[in-house]
Amino acid sequence: MTTVPRGGGRDAITRAARESFAERGYHGSSIRDIAARAGLSLSALYHWHPSKQDLLTALIEESTAEYFRRCDEALQDAGDDPAARLDALVRATVEYRVSRRVESTIAASEWRNLEPGNRERLDGMRAAASRLWADLVDDGVARGVFGCEHPADARRAVVAACNAIAQWYQPEQWYEPGEREGGLAVEDLVARYTVIARRIVDHRR
Amino acid sequence: MTTVPRGGGRDAITRAARESFAERGYHGSSIRDIAARAGLSLSALYHWHPSKQDLLTALIEESTAEYFRRCDEALQDAGDDPAARLDALVRATVEYRVSRRVESTIAASEWRNLEPGNRERLDGMRAAASRLWADLVDDGVARGVFGCEHPADARRAVVAACNAIAQWYQPEQWYEPGEREGGLAVEDLVARYTVIARRIVDHRR
Repeated sequence: MTTVPRGGGRDAITRAARESFAERGYHGSSIRDIAARAGLSLSALYHWHPSKQDLLTALIEESTAEYFRRCDEALQDAGDDPAARLDALVRATVEYRVSRRVESTIAASEWRNLEPGNRERLDGMRAAASRLWADLVDDGVARGVFGCEHPADARRAVVAACNAIAQWYQPEQWYEPGEREGGLAVEDLVARYTVIARRIVDHRR
Repeated sequence: MTTVPRGGGRDAITRAARESFAERGYHGSSIRDIAARAGLSLSALYHWHPSKQDLLTALIEESTAEYFRRCDEALQDAGDDPAARLDALVRATVEYRVSRRVESTIAASEWRNLEPGNRERLDGMRAAASRLWADLVDDGVARGVFGCEHPADARRAVVAACNAIAQWYQPEQWYEPGEREGGLAVEDLVARYTVIARRIVDHRR
């Protein structure tokens, strides 16, 4: 068993849980395996987290809260123009999906395994993030800046396109013939998905 | 144990495996539980499928092949116009995601659990479906019918938007204030996602 630096218990557990859930899924992970990966005894692990469910909830909660925080911050700096606000949320989402690929995949696959109370709370957090998108698209439509006929579908399409980045993006890889010089930089991704998002909402210049 | 109608063994197993993988994930499902759900003895189940891996592979393979078949058929009837071909693939994908929601979710969550040989084969099938999309978008760009600057990203965005339908669509539910009279029909979904897809590729009329 590895020695864990003093005070590193919580971080070591988070890393171990993330690894285990990503590799084997929630039902395939055991609290014993997570403790071993973290280099901790079972009782030390129980000190921090009373159950596997608690670990899953903490992991999804932390990353959902972090996503919401980034979106909220981005909107605060974006001013009032709906297109600028859309750009800000696209940037926050693309950057988040690129930097938190593993957590994104775990949240997507294991959300169904949250127990009712936890699920309700996290559904609420997810709904709040969803409202940030919905409000800005609705506002853009109401002000005639966006032409899309079905704002909820436009919102879902933009979010799905940005979220999918977590599934395919590899920092070191090129994706099109013109990109052979090196990987696709996050800035390029942000620029591309900004254009795509504006097209989906039918942004009228 | 329920009585399984003669010849129904294979279907009963497929249904049971689908249920179990959807509820508990691959690692959380046991071959014993799948046999019990199917109302079969373990040895009867082994007659059809030698392992849980074999069951997962068969399930994903069948649904991926079915998706490819539908896309291929849709394109054969669509003629030569890139926009009409795009519409055809959007229709095939939306209809597929609506009718095969459970399989879609299992394929998305459990693909990582395919063993190397199986995974390679199914990656090949998935790549073939991806090429149908890529060829038509590239063709539209080459002919000046689509204006999108990054065809691969446009393709990924369209596919992600259509695929996400499996996660949120409920036939009996309404999604916007105007829809309170009843559920959102598949035809409406197809129409909406056709518009979204044409916007993403920047279709020039």
